[in-house]
Amino acid sequence: MNKAKLVKQIQKKKSFLCVGLDVDLEKIPVHLLSAEDPLFEFSKQIIDSTHHTAVAYKPNTAFFEAYGIKGWQALEKVNRYIKEYYPEIFTIADAKRGDIGNTSTRYAKAFFEDLNFDSVTVAPYMGRDSVEPFLAFEDKFTIMLALTSNPGGLDFQTFVDENGLNLYEKVLQTSLTWKNAERLMYVVGATRPEYFQKIRKIVPDHFLLVPGVGAQGGSLEEVCKYGLNKEIGLLVNSSRGIIYASNNKDFAKIAREKAEELQQQMAEILSVRDSQK
Amino acid sequence: MNKAKLVKQIQKKKSFLCVGLDVDLEKIPVHLLSAEDPLFEFSKQIIDSTHHTAVAYKPNTAFFEAYGIKGWQALEKVNRYIKEYYPEIFTIADAKRGDIGNTSTRYAKAFFEDLNFDSVTVAPYMGRDSVEPFLAFEDKFTIMLALTSNPGGLDFQTFVDENGLNLYEKVLQTSLTWKNAERLMYVVGATRPEYFQKIRKIVPDHFLLVPGVGAQGGSLEEVCKYGLNKEIGLLVNSSRGIIYASNNKDFAKIAREKAEELQQQMAEILSVRDSQK
Repeated sequence: MNKAKLVKQIQKKKSFLCVGLDVDLEKIPVHLLSAEDPLFEFSKQIIDSTHHTAVAYKPNTAFFEAYGIKGWQALEKVNRYIKEYYPEIFTIADAKRGDIGNTSTRYAKAFFEDLNFDSVTVAPYMGRDSVEPFLAFEDKFTIMLALTSNPGGLDFQTFVDENGLNLYEKVLQTSLTWKNAERLMYVVGATRPEYFQKIRKIVPDHFLLVPGVGAQGGSLEEVCKYGLNKEIGLLVNSSRGIIYASNNKDFAKIAREKAEELQQQMAEILSVRDSQK
Repeated sequence: MNKAKLVKQIQKKKSFLCVGLDVDLEKIPVHLLSAEDPLFEFSKQIIDSTHHTAVAYKPNTAFFEAYGIKGWQALEKVNRYIKEYYPEIFTIADAKRGDIGNTSTRYAKAFFEDLNFDSVTVAPYMGRDSVEPFLAFEDKFTIMLALTSNPGGLDFQTFVDENGLNLYEKVLQTSLTWKNAERLMYVVGATRPEYFQKIRKIVPDHFLLVPGVGAQGGSLEEVCKYGLNKEIGLLVNSSRGIIYASNNKDFAKIAREKAEELQQQMAEILSVRDSQK
């Protein structure tokens, strides 16, 4: 998928919502456990009930990998299902990979070609040659960790050099010099709204994938205040707040309501923004 | 596996060699491609011909994941084979994972419990709560990237703060404060021998997993000069230099010779060291 299609979808749906599919068999409704493939069945019902509100789905691969071979089969089915029934929706393999060159190429092929995801998340610690192999794929996006929403996110990411530059800023700046840098997006946690202004100065045009709204305490308004750019430029993710809002038979209906609530907040923010133009 | 068993094996074999299983169907001997499971068959023959020289095997999970479900099955078989026939050997899932807490727990369970590896490699960028879930497993080791051997390793890992502290040093220091830090090992590239002295000052007692000897240009002597500690404390990895030394029918025999060469160099280094005590 290219950026123009993603932006078009955002404008049409008045939404920049990404639904995170952290599918945990210990948390999904009990009645689904007897399904032939509970991981897929749960994901399918969530997708069917939220697709009108969401522009992206983000399966966290760890949750699928944890179930071994069955998990990988389910992950493949989930992406294929989205691509078949809702082909306009952007898919993100949240895998946080990163390795030396020839190994990163393997990972890139696995997620972009074999599994056919539109994007994959990567970790920056190993530098240029660990990320560029992902960037070599046309019409695919590589979403690099910059400033993460978890408590440990500040352990190293805000490490400061003698000029006051933070590691996450160094990561952003450096990545712009890499080949095919226009295929980068960045993970920036919603729990760090005070950093969005600085981040937008370094990467004004790139999309940011923003986890941490809802369950982790991030505020949508604060993220949008400095995070929005001229093409919207945000994918705001919610996982638990939508998919586990209910663990009863009504889970898909409640997930739909929660997703619609977030979408409506986004539509309102976009509407206010358009009226101020 | 615990540290005492690993050290005992090293002393018995006079070797601290780790053989990296980067199994690539485009590089293995053509005659193996008709085997029922070429990934496993190649690995098995390499293991059978090098087990007397190696104290650890390190399958790089990317190479298995790249072949989808069959790849995961092969990875599981490889570890099971080692555990059944050579139970004294330490196994490393080179997966370079790292995610927020509940997700890291998923990864830890997948590699330590489902696949039964002795250790797994992780990336430090997301900080404490991305690594501690791995450290919670008794008799398992978590091998964190510190200073990697690839060219991009210096993009961020040697980012320097106002006191002259490098990011990799900050990562090492900080990790020592984490719960169950004694279950950590660290990846330090053989291509960076000038850093080993500084690293040993911070982590004198931990094992270092050292890739980059051979194909990537690192020197065993230089690594040992400052890297060895009182319990040896090194696992020196060679992948391509052993497993792809020949891609003909004699590949296992040649791999054995290359592994024996490295083991003999290690035995010599240990012998000189013991004589100097």
